[in-house]
Amino acid sequence: MYNLFTNILGSFIIDAKGSIVDSIQFKTLSEYEGRVAAEKKLLTKYPTATIPSPQKQAELLSLFQDKKFFTSFKEINTQLTISAIQESLNPDLLIIQAISNIDELDKVSNLLSRRLREWYSLYFPELDQKVSHPEKYVELLLTKDKPTLIKELEVTRSMGGTLKPLDLEQIKQLASHIQKTHELRLSHEQYLEKVMLSHCPNILELAGTTIGARLIELARSLKHLALLPSSTIKLFGAEKALFRHLKTGAKSPKYGIIINHPLVAKAQKENKGKAARLLADKLSLCARLDFFKGELK
Amino acid sequence: MYNLFTNILGSFIIDAKGSIVDSIQFKTLSEYEGRVAAEKKLLTKYPTATIPSPQKQAELLSLFQDKKFFTSFKEINTQLTISAIQESLNPDLLIIQAISNIDELDKVSNLLSRRLREWYSLYFPELDQKVSHPEKYVELLLTKDKPTLIKELEVTRSMGGTLKPLDLEQIKQLASHIQKTHELRLSHEQYLEKVMLSHCPNILELAGTTIGARLIELARSLKHLALLPSSTIKLFGAEKALFRHLKTGAKSPKYGIIINHPLVAKAQKENKGKAARLLADKLSLCARLDFFKGELK
Repeated sequence: MYNLFTNILGSFIIDAKGSIVDSIQFKTLSEYEGRVAAEKKLLTKYPTATIPSPQKQAELLSLFQDKKFFTSFKEINTQLTISAIQESLNPDLLIIQAISNIDELDKVSNLLSRRLREWYSLYFPELDQKVSHPEKYVELLLTKDKPTLIKELEVTRSMGGTLKPLDLEQIKQLASHIQKTHELRLSHEQYLEKVMLSHCPNILELAGTTIGARLIELARSLKHLALLPSSTIKLFGAEKALFRHLKTGAKSPKYGIIINHPLVAKAQKENKGKAARLLADKLSLCARLDFFKGELK
Repeated sequence: MYNLFTNILGSFIIDAKGSIVDSIQFKTLSEYEGRVAAEKKLLTKYPTATIPSPQKQAELLSLFQDKKFFTSFKEINTQLTISAIQESLNPDLLIIQAISNIDELDKVSNLLSRRLREWYSLYFPELDQKVSHPEKYVELLLTKDKPTLIKELEVTRSMGGTLKPLDLEQIKQLASHIQKTHELRLSHEQYLEKVMLSHCPNILELAGTTIGARLIELARSLKHLALLPSSTIKLFGAEKALFRHLKTGAKSPKYGIIINHPLVAKAQKENKGKAARLLADKLSLCARLDFFKGELK
């Protein structure tokens, strides 16, 4: 009567008296991963060996209380942990990093644009008043000089002072840095689209890059997003308003970040809640399709 | 008995009955700025004309209540205002803009560096633990690949997962953007030094670029800095602690931003207050020398 017992140290054949009669030991993680083959090999040698019941297994474990096993236990356990950590790196994490960085770059662009406007307005305050679009402002500043812009924007006279080329040079360097920030954001966005196209094509299709990625970020993983009810998805990003509602009885929020989706944003005011509900419903379906690898027909 | 009366519209010779007998009118701002020449010309024609007493001047002003003068008044006044605004652009403002932007760029670098470390740590977490210096981290990430760094930093094994070149490319773009932010900061700093060298050489010499510029920023102008008592300069940047002291009787602050000056920073703990007092005293002298254009012998 033999028992076949396998743990991370090896596969063991144990007789009725509880002593090891034969074994195949695992020295590396990959040997442990091939444990099924090792078990088969032992079973051909000892065809009568059976896998013990859970209670019996617990008893057999006491065989390994000997200190001589401890180093191997520690070594293979560490390897197992490291490999688990390494494998935890999935596209979800890449999506979350990329979208967090896009948000950060937006913040940075805003900060620096505000500084740029203040600085350049010493020289040409009218440009700040006439051009509100941030990227347009930077582009005009970099490509056209003040006299040209005064003519093109029909400014009658500028209140700005005079600056030396040395001073203007610094402002232009800042402007071109802001432009590079916009370019980096664009590159991140294109990358995000590629990752999402293979990882969650349905969410990408319906929600677009930024909203889709932000939903995964808020849910912390595609799996979690797939398991959430659509009403939660609807309110993602409106946590503050939701808790205010629960605590003080203030009006409950109707939508979270999906308000930025064109389908909701462009709906008429009285239909926005309905649109958000429908969109969240379909997004939830998409997340499930993407996670469980279903296919849209 | 003639009176000579000048305002922004022109120079006028007014007789005893209060009617204008002769005048030189100013059509542009530059003609108004040459008003002394105009007055001289009229005085050669009417050598007996005198400048009326303030009371008499107030009476004469009533001559210009006529609506026909209003357009000219408005026009020349607007020109005057614009020119005053344009001339208010002095090196102080340039220094304040540059130092504000340096502070902003520092904030931006910190934000993005934190993101970079989080992102790259998916791939190579050990680099974050081994290299704490932000610029060094970026440089290593950009110039050396993971296997090289593992060898050089004596990392036994990396817990990081595997990333595709496509993923790493984005991280490297972010790293090189952070590097460009550092370069822009350096360029601003060199520019600041040039401006300060001609505008406030003594402050630059004693306080250095950043602390000197920050003092001017906090005082809002070199003039104001020159007029402040040195005890205020000592506490610049410690306003919060000062008002806490005044309000709650907590310990009074000993120094503000000048704590960052090597003379104070390197002083022994019990001497820091004294060093700050001495430094603030000399900084105040420097500000006065720079503003009143005195010269250090």
